[in-house]
Amino acid sequence: MILTVTLNAALDTTYHVDRLVPNSSHRVKEMHGRAGGKGVNVARVLHTLGHPVVVTGFAGGATGAAVRADLARAGLADALVDLAGESRRTVTVVCAAEGDATVFNEPGPHVAEEDWRRFLARFAALVPDAAVVVLSGSLPPGTPVGAYADLTRIAAEHGARTVVDAEGEPLRLAVAARPDVVKPNAAELRATTGEADPDAGAALLRAAGARAVVASLGAAGVLAVTDEGTWRATPPERVAGNPTGAGDACVAALAAGLRDGLAWPEVLRAAVALSAAAVLHPVAGGFDDRARRRFLPDVDVRPGSGSPT
Amino acid sequence: MILTVTLNAALDTTYHVDRLVPNSSHRVKEMHGRAGGKGVNVARVLHTLGHPVVVTGFAGGATGAAVRADLARAGLADALVDLAGESRRTVTVVCAAEGDATVFNEPGPHVAEEDWRRFLARFAALVPDAAVVVLSGSLPPGTPVGAYADLTRIAAEHGARTVVDAEGEPLRLAVAARPDVVKPNAAELRATTGEADPDAGAALLRAAGARAVVASLGAAGVLAVTDEGTWRATPPERVAGNPTGAGDACVAALAAGLRDGLAWPEVLRAAVALSAAAVLHPVAGGFDDRARRRFLPDVDVRPGSGSPT
Repeated sequence: MILTVTLNAALDTTYHVDRLVPNSSHRVKEMHGRAGGKGVNVARVLHTLGHPVVVTGFAGGATGAAVRADLARAGLADALVDLAGESRRTVTVVCAAEGDATVFNEPGPHVAEEDWRRFLARFAALVPDAAVVVLSGSLPPGTPVGAYADLTRIAAEHGARTVVDAEGEPLRLAVAARPDVVKPNAAELRATTGEADPDAGAALLRAAGARAVVASLGAAGVLAVTDEGTWRATPPERVAGNPTGAGDACVAALAAGLRDGLAWPEVLRAAVALSAAAVLHPVAGGFDDRARRRFLPDVDVRPGSGSPT
Repeated sequence: MILTVTLNAALDTTYHVDRLVPNSSHRVKEMHGRAGGKGVNVARVLHTLGHPVVVTGFAGGATGAAVRADLARAGLADALVDLAGESRRTVTVVCAAEGDATVFNEPGPHVAEEDWRRFLARFAALVPDAAVVVLSGSLPPGTPVGAYADLTRIAAEHGARTVVDAEGEPLRLAVAARPDVVKPNAAELRATTGEADPDAGAALLRAAGARAVVASLGAAGVLAVTDEGTWRATPPERVAGNPTGAGDACVAALAAGLRDGLAWPEVLRAAVALSAAAVLHPVAGGFDDRARRRFLPDVDVRPGSGSPT
């Protein structure tokens, strides 16, 4: 199975308002909540594609209970570890008029040393059954900053491959633990390496230990720098919609490709088609499967770091 | 005692962010939650002033439990009625740079007929001990639109005076039940009566049944139209700060004045001084007591509806 780790799992709450006017008061007309956090979104995508997947991380309090109830509704295997604190919410404000969304991410509950030890024990129990481990998203306060590095090392000891989607110090430390793939987006790559050029940034992460770097470049597709070569993969058309879950869909495709031992060009083809199909879906963790199948044969995958003209 | 009714009690959550940028993602740097809803704010002010006060209304789920825990922390008597649904949150986004706040009010949990019957039974048990009943704020979905009218009639049957702070249809219906005081702000008065002129709006509400109308006019103070006469009361100076709780502070002063049998000019003096002192306090339900004492002798209270020049 594929094990997705969401240390800062969240209840993603959506507020529908007529218009967002800063410094004024808004009556929320409609709201709904669902389990979220990057790793949960990745798990949703993998589950929909038919891959066996297990969700772990932390969940606490009533918000944590709501997260678990929603995972159960979605049919996702829940191996979250209980936490004394209250899981965080994210609030996304969506306006009827405009398509875009304004997002507020709560920092998350405090993770005590003892909580982290309990998580490590759970992870050690799960990882022998995992072909691939996905480490995604922010760390809740109190988590060791080297959390993803430690989990990457433990996964490797058990022969599991790792995909890391993080940024800043947690990503820098994880890279030194030699993960199989890291997937920053352009902004994260720049923030983590200080390099504005994705090629140069990817080279730095590879030099620091990442076996492969797949940088997601939004509408321009992905740049992959690996031991076997460098590729650019570009979607066949520009898609408009909700970009929130595109990165998580990309990670899901990378994890599935690693598990199935696909060659890089095929992995990247699947990742770009799935990301574009996720943009067409209104909620992170979902994708338009007909669009995915339509895009798949037409994704432009070419060696080298240049984009198609 | 004074009984404050908050049917849509809330967990008021504050998100501190660097800057609010619509259509972008925000990392919430600091957050805190406290019990809220207009009636809860009124109760906080009364409690601080030393008036015996009891809080009733609905509280449900984990959010309701957090509301109750915060009331206990504040030392407020909690007579909230349990609800199967989850109490609402309000989210206030505060920017470090600017002083203003952007507010999102969730609609609140569904109140079933059976819930409303249980509330009426609780209210009937509490009201014999109440000198004044305060009916404040929005109605959660499912509540009868005539809720405030019904509660006003029941209060009158038990000899309790009533202060209603509502708007729209719930206010219109309540007015017909002859409450002692209604306290709309200028916008609510206009929205409820269709009259842009506060005098004309107040006259309409009086004709419809309200014994007294105290319209809060922001920095311009209040206009009171009563059986004993009409007054304007104006704060001695312009205050800058957080206007959120000023209306609730005004209601608290009106309830306290009714309970103590003060003459209208004294009630209005207290209401304007307390409202202005609430603007100086960063959170609704609090006020700057030194400012209140300083303002009190200098509030301009004059008969008639004209404002001081």
